[in-house]
Amino acid sequence: MESAMPVPAPQDTATAYEPTGRTVPTRARERASYDRATVHAILDASYLCHLGFVRDGAPVVLPTLYARVGEALYVHGSTGSRPLREAGRPDPGLAVCLTVTHVDGLVLARSAFHHSINYRSVVVHGTAHQVTDPAEKRTALDALVDQVVAGRSADSRPANAKELAATAVLRLDLAEVSAKSRTGGPNDDPEDLGLPHWAGVVPVAPAYGAPVPAGDLAPSVALPGYLSA
Amino acid sequence: MESAMPVPAPQDTATAYEPTGRTVPTRARERASYDRATVHAILDASYLCHLGFVRDGAPVVLPTLYARVGEALYVHGSTGSRPLREAGRPDPGLAVCLTVTHVDGLVLARSAFHHSINYRSVVVHGTAHQVTDPAEKRTALDALVDQVVAGRSADSRPANAKELAATAVLRLDLAEVSAKSRTGGPNDDPEDLGLPHWAGVVPVAPAYGAPVPAGDLAPSVALPGYLSA
Repeated sequence: MESAMPVPAPQDTATAYEPTGRTVPTRARERASYDRATVHAILDASYLCHLGFVRDGAPVVLPTLYARVGEALYVHGSTGSRPLREAGRPDPGLAVCLTVTHVDGLVLARSAFHHSINYRSVVVHGTAHQVTDPAEKRTALDALVDQVVAGRSADSRPANAKELAATAVLRLDLAEVSAKSRTGGPNDDPEDLGLPHWAGVVPVAPAYGAPVPAGDLAPSVALPGYLSA
Repeated sequence: MESAMPVPAPQDTATAYEPTGRTVPTRARERASYDRATVHAILDASYLCHLGFVRDGAPVVLPTLYARVGEALYVHGSTGSRPLREAGRPDPGLAVCLTVTHVDGLVLARSAFHHSINYRSVVVHGTAHQVTDPAEKRTALDALVDQVVAGRSADSRPANAKELAATAVLRLDLAEVSAKSRTGGPNDDPEDLGLPHWAGVVPVAPAYGAPVPAGDLAPSVALPGYLSA
């Protein structure tokens, strides 16, 4: 709950996104970044986002996979799913907010008030549109597989015509974007430093276990190199 | 992308939430559950949610901490933050969608199309209201700390009057709620089972590292038992 600091001056748009009214936080502005490399790194380190949209005037937030290709994000789903149907309208598309969050640590302070989380997050505002170009759709579907396991799309059967027809892909351009992060230890008030409570950070990161072969996998199929790393 | 199955019949409301138009998915209905114990277990295993609300007609999704106390969820923030200010209006409160997701595994199928994620998620729809009762507010703030590290609130300095005044707490009742999950291996089409691609699941779970003491922690303060487990 650090105090607010001045908004950083807009940076070169070649290396940073332009801040807007909804990407400049009202609080903890020193934690916000518009740097493209920072945003890309946070997005590239995950594959799960929380996609928000408005249905009948109320918010809906659903977890879904995403992929980044340059300055575009893609999400996909059944052509029968509600948000994808809504985004299929040629105009105006679907207003969305796509958020990606990594938890890096639990921050324990002497005071309950200064407990916090170390995290990195990206929030993208914009309008998602259905991808209609077949080549772009294939690129997006490959990217969605490779976002989860790099190199995997080349080692699986590509979608056939029936599967392509059943899958809708939404594109959201990276334009109105901000990153936010917290790092470091607790920020206790000076008068609390002598209290007898332990203070510090418990690191958190996703851990990947040993791959479990499908029950019907032929014994001759070896574990690929991209999974043994 | 399993095909849709019939909606399960509404269960006893003592043990299950009543399904509604927005908690019955249009697809993969067999993955949905309204069982209270299932919902509680998913909520109790995390502390980070993605909170969605509508601002100026557009969706906003922010990561934030939450706590469950019985059939209520609490989130908190600065009294100066936008969603908390909006929820402070006595009527009608703030329409929100609060979503919690655990990733349990990466599901690799022979076909790109059947790649998936094993996950458990809970989606809560409703109206959040600011907590004004001081006792409920204190209970909620303790629960927010204990949701991250069980037992921690009793081992930290409680919020003082100034901190309480600076912190707003929102309450969202668990009423319109559903859980969704996927488990198990890939569901490849029969004709793909002979393809030479590895198939199976890579397990994923959060891993907690060795606690890192704050730089200014007195050496006499030992690591508490609730962190050494």
